[in-house]
Amino acid sequence: MAKIHFEPAGRIIDISDERITVAEAAERASVPLDSVCGGRGTCGRCRVIVTSEDALITEEDRKAIDPRDLDRGVRLACRMKADHDLVVEIPTEFARSSQIILEDSAIDIEIKPRIRWIPLRVPPPSLDFQVGDFERLSKVLEDRLGTKSLLASLPIMNSLNELLRIEGEVTAILRGNELIGMIPPKPKERYGMAIDVGTTTVVAYLMDLESGKEVAVKSAMNPQIGYGDDVVSRITFAMERRNGTSVLQSLIVSCINDLIDGCCAATCVSRNDIYEIVAVGNTAMHHMLFGLTTSGLAFSPYVPVISDPVEFKAKEIGIDIAPEGYVHSLPNVAGFVGADHVAVLLASHIWESVEPRLVIDIGTNGEISLGDSERIVCASCAAGPAFEGASLKFGMRGTEGAIDHVSISKDYTVKYTTIGGTPPRGLCGSGAVDAISEMSKTGVIDRTGRIMEELEIPGIRVRNGESEFVIAAEKESAINEPITITQDDVVQIQYAKAAMYAGACILMDSLGINASRLNAIMLAGAFGNYLSPESARTIGLIPEVPLQRVIGIGNAAGAGAKMALLNEDFRERAREILRKVEYIELAAHSGFEELFYRALYIPNYDTSSFPGTTSDI
Amino acid sequence: MAKIHFEPAGRIIDISDERITVAEAAERASVPLDSVCGGRGTCGRCRVIVTSEDALITEEDRKAIDPRDLDRGVRLACRMKADHDLVVEIPTEFARSSQIILEDSAIDIEIKPRIRWIPLRVPPPSLDFQVGDFERLSKVLEDRLGTKSLLASLPIMNSLNELLRIEGEVTAILRGNELIGMIPPKPKERYGMAIDVGTTTVVAYLMDLESGKEVAVKSAMNPQIGYGDDVVSRITFAMERRNGTSVLQSLIVSCINDLIDGCCAATCVSRNDIYEIVAVGNTAMHHMLFGLTTSGLAFSPYVPVISDPVEFKAKEIGIDIAPEGYVHSLPNVAGFVGADHVAVLLASHIWESVEPRLVIDIGTNGEISLGDSERIVCASCAAGPAFEGASLKFGMRGTEGAIDHVSISKDYTVKYTTIGGTPPRGLCGSGAVDAISEMSKTGVIDRTGRIMEELEIPGIRVRNGESEFVIAAEKESAINEPITITQDDVVQIQYAKAAMYAGACILMDSLGINASRLNAIMLAGAFGNYLSPESARTIGLIPEVPLQRVIGIGNAAGAGAKMALLNEDFRERAREILRKVEYIELAAHSGFEELFYRALYIPNYDTSSFPGTTSDI
Repeated sequence: MAKIHFEPAGRIIDISDERITVAEAAERASVPLDSVCGGRGTCGRCRVIVTSEDALITEEDRKAIDPRDLDRGVRLACRMKADHDLVVEIPTEFARSSQIILEDSAIDIEIKPRIRWIPLRVPPPSLDFQVGDFERLSKVLEDRLGTKSLLASLPIMNSLNELLRIEGEVTAILRGNELIGMIPPKPKERYGMAIDVGTTTVVAYLMDLESGKEVAVKSAMNPQIGYGDDVVSRITFAMERRNGTSVLQSLIVSCINDLIDGCCAATCVSRNDIYEIVAVGNTAMHHMLFGLTTSGLAFSPYVPVISDPVEFKAKEIGIDIAPEGYVHSLPNVAGFVGADHVAVLLASHIWESVEPRLVIDIGTNGEISLGDSERIVCASCAAGPAFEGASLKFGMRGTEGAIDHVSISKDYTVKYTTIGGTPPRGLCGSGAVDAISEMSKTGVIDRTGRIMEELEIPGIRVRNGESEFVIAAEKESAINEPITITQDDVVQIQYAKAAMYAGACILMDSLGINASRLNAIMLAGAFGNYLSPESARTIGLIPEVPLQRVIGIGNAAGAGAKMALLNEDFRERAREILRKVEYIELAAHSGFEELFYRALYIPNYDTSSFPGTTSDI
Repeated sequence: MAKIHFEPAGRIIDISDERITVAEAAERASVPLDSVCGGRGTCGRCRVIVTSEDALITEEDRKAIDPRDLDRGVRLACRMKADHDLVVEIPTEFARSSQIILEDSAIDIEIKPRIRWIPLRVPPPSLDFQVGDFERLSKVLEDRLGTKSLLASLPIMNSLNELLRIEGEVTAILRGNELIGMIPPKPKERYGMAIDVGTTTVVAYLMDLESGKEVAVKSAMNPQIGYGDDVVSRITFAMERRNGTSVLQSLIVSCINDLIDGCCAATCVSRNDIYEIVAVGNTAMHHMLFGLTTSGLAFSPYVPVISDPVEFKAKEIGIDIAPEGYVHSLPNVAGFVGADHVAVLLASHIWESVEPRLVIDIGTNGEISLGDSERIVCASCAAGPAFEGASLKFGMRGTEGAIDHVSISKDYTVKYTTIGGTPPRGLCGSGAVDAISEMSKTGVIDRTGRIMEELEIPGIRVRNGESEFVIAAEKESAINEPITITQDDVVQIQYAKAAMYAGACILMDSLGINASRLNAIMLAGAFGNYLSPESARTIGLIPEVPLQRVIGIGNAAGAGAKMALLNEDFRERAREILRKVEYIELAAHSGFEELFYRALYIPNYDTSSFPGTTSDI
């Protein structure tokens, strides 16, 4: 029997099977590691620090880990047996961040959904107690819960007569003071869904409202992509075509219905047992989901129809769950900064932080917020699709075969890992940032981003008049040609990172703080999750702070939606966040342009802001 | 120029045209008289008492009015010119009661509809004021009216963008805290409807919510009659047939839509400018209108699905008014005593009366309430259809050609009037009650109701073994046969009046008062309006009180619905009434049967309860 103690989570687990690895033990202890190779020791992503003695070094450890790190106890958890007592520290950057957030929320938040499930007994009527079905039920609920002014739809009212006459004992399903369901008293589960409606990807989480557990998750491409990769093209379509808004609404609604189908099929849950959806998305996605016009978002001053939280019966917008079930959306901030960013802020706990935090959510649109429990400033950055890998020559989304991590040695030998460990098919955003960071550190590019084609560096070549650097040779590649970073790819990443960094500077400036004051930089979204904090700092995408303060928080929009679904208090918290948030229109800010141009340099024209990074060079 | 002073209304009107009659002046002064002959001096229903001098007696006065009454100044208002100053008293029994109620409500009640109409200017957004359309509007409404938590449907939210961007000035249509309409600022009228959904007749009043005036009224037979004359047959149908409730709901809904069409066509009002309907009906009609199951009403203990006031969007039940318009129903009391009776109670002002009042509403079902501002007791009487003329041999509804008033002289000469003054086609309820009252007074029937066929009385005859009394001879009749009252007709009226009277006794007993304490007996409904209070008292349908205390209050259910439509405070008043009302189940009352059998006598077995009436005989 071995005791494995995980830090900083403080979790202890007993393992009695000596074949179990530390990585598997971490999974069992609900502090899973960020691994992509399935425990084969190839991705190098499951690094832990063993602070107790007896940390054997394996062959794989030697390949993947720097000798200095080996000395201080860094090991690959998937290669290490949990066969004796160990104290294992999981460095923040190697924790599987989205899981940690979700686990945290499962631990920290009280399960208190807006949907309540009340088993009760309603006294039958008699000639001395000639009281209507609805009033008898109302009375019981008022006595039990203090529910005043009970509401119900006509179909629900109509179901009472039979249920109350035959059963007497029933289960009332309440949402606030509305009776949204009434079922026989047999035990039955109740579910809700958290849905993150991204411009590119839609993710749906089926949640058990009783236990707070995620029981299924499904994702799909947003089918609106057929009408434009970005929100602006879709808004233009909605405005220019007759019924354009309806067309886009139907697409997203049927996508959501398919995801619900998928979650239900995987778990044998009935759609009729799903009583509420908390949906989050940017303002345009939010409006399109509810069929609201996005014309106001097309032109300055970019105002939405509504910023307040909205909720309507799911059937009103064509979503098929319980007949009286609801769709709730968190509030929008301003412009394109929507409910999804509010969800990210919820999950980041920025609203209760004493020290300032910088929260960066990089999706097809980038949003940054800076603040603490007192005040939050927020901006929207047109970072473009480069970080999602979309516009790079060999760019691809973070799916199997994408190069997600790259290192270049002093002799220009390139090492990389791919998602799923399969031969490389292209580069996802984190791979591209890693590559450019390494290219910068090894001098393949200079601080303006220019590929040093005049130097005799292996890997640099010119094709069709454009310089590029080979990351994976043709013989390794799954696509029968070398996978490279071109000069244009470098420029695109420079533009994207400069926009994010300049935005962060303006936010820091507006709160009068500098990077050293930042308690944490939280990276949300799939890209943020895979991104190497060190590379992000090296290229100047994020302000320079000690690396342990850079934390990937995974799909924080989904996590925030789950929080609001599982505990209705977080909806009020979201409103409070909204009251606290001050939106800064970067385009209107006089200092933005200069900050942007300075930030095009790697890491920055102002090297003084990156003392650690630049002293390394 | 003549000054005509009307009492007891206290209205004074100047008339400068000497061709104007007193009846027309009364109409102009909004104290219209209850006339059915159109001012031709034939119906004798427009009697007034001229208390000033110079009241000429016309030939028509001599025909219609008793010489003693002529002496005390009684005249037909339609025959008298308003060509010099006059003080004219309108006896309560000759006022057009429903009109008086409605006029009273127009005078007494403040116009304060639930639908509000707020012209306003919403500031445009700007880069410094990037606030959503809905929030900018909410802010203005909150500042102006204190409206918190504004609600709106998706289509209404969606209309904001264009209206606010183009116009800035708009008119918001509010119902409580829900924005139900938003229109350009041009002046436009707003309407509501009061609808009395009777088992037999449906009456719809189109009301101007600005002025409180009735602009149109239409009525129609309830098309559910095809599934039974009475509610019990219809409830049976609803229970036994698949979709029975839906069938009946569709019928009543399309009837209401047709009535709305009719009102709109007559006035060029658009359906879209009708924002609210207040509907009243007995519990079964109420449930069928909303599509609620009536199974609970089929069996003891006769409980409805809901008694509380209900309100839903009109479109939810298929009623076609403004897209976001509502249907509100007043609360139901218990059993079959529904929102229509609550409306009658509202209109009767029983809830603010210091002295006890007896309110009798005779429709296909009869409801009686007794009480004052402190306490109200209420019962439902199965009076049957006799009072509506339905089950009598020559019975008919109160339409043209119906004998509505009858007098029989000492020599058995029968005089009668018909509605519209046309040759008689049958007897309506008031005509039948008059006939039996006169037959009793002249000894055509004895106090058990037996037609005295053994006496040599002209008019009594025997046909097919049944005695009957001829009211209109064959030569006068429009149906080529004499119109008679048969022995069976007498028995039916006896049963009906005995049920009502016994019910009234139990209510008086439960409050511990007797008839002399009654401040007023108010007769609601079409029958109550046409019924001669004297005849009602003579046959013992109502407790014996001085005649001036018997007041017809017309379609009080419609009047109550109008009050609740025009001033939302009356909805709260209706709830208060409901809290005050104690429903007494007559069938369960031990004393009912004996009281009923005693009341079969004319006026009653207990002559001591009818000292005035019985001393006349």
